[in-house]
Amino acid sequence: MDKHQDLLARLAQPADTKLVLLVLDGVGDLRTAGQPQTALGAAELPNFDALARRSALGRLVPVIEGVTPGSGPGHLGLFGYDTTAPEADFGRGILEALGLGLEIGPGDVAIRGNFASADADGNLTDRRAGRIPTEEGRRVCAKIQPALAKLDSPSFEIHPGEGYRFVLLIRGDDLSAAVADTDPQRTGVPPLPLTATAPEGEATVAHLQPALDRMLEAIADEPAANCLSLRGFSKLPGLAQMNELYSMRLGAFAGYPLYRGVAAACGMAVVPCAKHFADMVPTLAERWSDFDFFFIHVKQTDQAGEDGNLAAKVAVLEEVDAALPELLALGPDVVAVTGDHSTPVPMKAHSWHPIPLLLHSERCYIDAGTEFTEDAATTGHIGTIPSRGLMGLMLANGGRLAKFGA
Amino acid sequence: MDKHQDLLARLAQPADTKLVLLVLDGVGDLRTAGQPQTALGAAELPNFDALARRSALGRLVPVIEGVTPGSGPGHLGLFGYDTTAPEADFGRGILEALGLGLEIGPGDVAIRGNFASADADGNLTDRRAGRIPTEEGRRVCAKIQPALAKLDSPSFEIHPGEGYRFVLLIRGDDLSAAVADTDPQRTGVPPLPLTATAPEGEATVAHLQPALDRMLEAIADEPAANCLSLRGFSKLPGLAQMNELYSMRLGAFAGYPLYRGVAAACGMAVVPCAKHFADMVPTLAERWSDFDFFFIHVKQTDQAGEDGNLAAKVAVLEEVDAALPELLALGPDVVAVTGDHSTPVPMKAHSWHPIPLLLHSERCYIDAGTEFTEDAATTGHIGTIPSRGLMGLMLANGGRLAKFGA
Repeated sequence: MDKHQDLLARLAQPADTKLVLLVLDGVGDLRTAGQPQTALGAAELPNFDALARRSALGRLVPVIEGVTPGSGPGHLGLFGYDTTAPEADFGRGILEALGLGLEIGPGDVAIRGNFASADADGNLTDRRAGRIPTEEGRRVCAKIQPALAKLDSPSFEIHPGEGYRFVLLIRGDDLSAAVADTDPQRTGVPPLPLTATAPEGEATVAHLQPALDRMLEAIADEPAANCLSLRGFSKLPGLAQMNELYSMRLGAFAGYPLYRGVAAACGMAVVPCAKHFADMVPTLAERWSDFDFFFIHVKQTDQAGEDGNLAAKVAVLEEVDAALPELLALGPDVVAVTGDHSTPVPMKAHSWHPIPLLLHSERCYIDAGTEFTEDAATTGHIGTIPSRGLMGLMLANGGRLAKFGA
Repeated sequence: MDKHQDLLARLAQPADTKLVLLVLDGVGDLRTAGQPQTALGAAELPNFDALARRSALGRLVPVIEGVTPGSGPGHLGLFGYDTTAPEADFGRGILEALGLGLEIGPGDVAIRGNFASADADGNLTDRRAGRIPTEEGRRVCAKIQPALAKLDSPSFEIHPGEGYRFVLLIRGDDLSAAVADTDPQRTGVPPLPLTATAPEGEATVAHLQPALDRMLEAIADEPAANCLSLRGFSKLPGLAQMNELYSMRLGAFAGYPLYRGVAAACGMAVVPCAKHFADMVPTLAERWSDFDFFFIHVKQTDQAGEDGNLAAKVAVLEEVDAALPELLALGPDVVAVTGDHSTPVPMKAHSWHPIPLLLHSERCYIDAGTEFTEDAATTGHIGTIPSRGLMGLMLANGGRLAKFGA
């Protein structure tokens, strides 16, 4: 545990308050020569703006200046973790497995797999098996699983993903993720042999080799997916659990499995719910008495940003705004609205730019900001702080931190 | 020593400049629905505002986002220490002893005591001895001290505090503060027995037990204070000394003993002075040639905040403002005005909110701020920085830091 998180944990005290963290994934955007208004600036957001007039605004820097986070470190920052620590770096295999909603044990190794096509000599002709559709991937995985079923110490599971992707899970004890990717990153050569990247990976390679041989044997007669590569060997990071750190009951309300998985890895209870904010609110209302902290994840802002679609991003924000009063009617004591990173429409990708933050409680400074926009956030009372600073602010505003020292 | 302090110490160089740190304890405040103006906003401060027009403004975060400091960590931050380090956490006994103005050696253990009332069976009937007046506490302490005088290795001293409170000092070698509180936190039961919280505390418990027995014997016939509890066992933290770190002569001008004690623990010379700013200035003038750095502590802003009295906080600020020209007439090269934390009137308590900062020197950026208020500070040139960053800024503005690297 790091000093920052340790200090918050030492000061944490119970209180009869409800804290809401509404994450509009990728909400932050850019003003450029070609895009004179950001999505927050262009959208009509009467309810967010009314809340902003009773709130403090500010901005969050997700990792350090210039660093663009993926969804893993982006959310870990919001949840108060040190995003520069090695354990904040969820491995690719783990993220893919969490994205599929798989349960992962602390000793398990998760691996991202790609189905591929190879010629008679075993040389790759297509690293993505001609981008076979998801249904085809499911069929091939179903064909492989019986071949793996006989191996039981460790045991192996294959789970289909999107298109040509799959996840291979190795469940057992004393497993290591110190194994190199087998994807050669080019065609005309065979996949790389399984090799350990450190001595502790050798036993895992020895277990995995016969499983890999069975998998390849099972798909040898496939027209497209007759080969495969394995990447991103990883284990679940050993994260301090938020429910223990802060003596709170935390519920994660997210429509997509990746975010549920990250929240679960941090000690939150995952609540099945809809994909759109308006449809999530009834679930929040039903479960209002069960939790102290509510993490609500809205994915569509990020999707619109990734698509480079300003109108779509504006529309999502306006949809969330329309349902905001129903959330506020539940009577949260602290409401934070922000993102895990920016996804500027002109960049069609995640970025490093600071993320607007709105923080409301009876204990916040009502600053001069009259709307929830990048500009108002830039001069807000909270200032520009690391994302991980938000957790302390939410706890403090909720009366959940004792004074430090006398 | 930490990296930050170590870097400043390596770069510190002498200069013929005078640095003034004026701490308005708890000065920062909130704008809320019920309090549309802060104390700084409501007060008429012509002299502070005139200084602000020749200064850079900004804000200090005392510890980390959301963490509310007591006076100990609040001041250590202003003095450039890492407030998240364990040594920044002054123990309760030490703070109480510093508050009484006691001299504490590096090996001594300080303990907060409460006189209490107990029935014939030894069960507590009042944990504060009916809140006996200070005079009564003094009388009981005077009765106890002779009983302790015979013990000399280690030696024991009892010092009366406010009302039912006292400080017990154990002076000697190889003492440990690893001893548990004896206050059971409820009545109807006797005080808890003396126990060590770690093996190194056992020798101290063995020394303390006969002293405690004598103390109880001496007060057995008291009508109210016939029992006592001991809390907050602590030793002086081993802080790097500011006079050595920065090759400066530092003087502390504070009307209340706690702040004098914290300053002394950091390597400042304590100068006896009055409790109100206007009455301190003549002492500052007298001692102007004796020091390079002047820490001036104004307590009354915090008291008004704790009392929830906006008018009183405004009045204190206006009193300080009226005497400010006399301080400036002494010709300081660097003037920093800020607080050790915010004490918002609506909260009647210390808080985590950033503290306004005014920094004036010939080397500061004169920003757009035309008054010393929370709002002007929020958009000031210094930005929002950790409290500990102030020491580097003061040294730099005073020409007391060499260039780092070639």
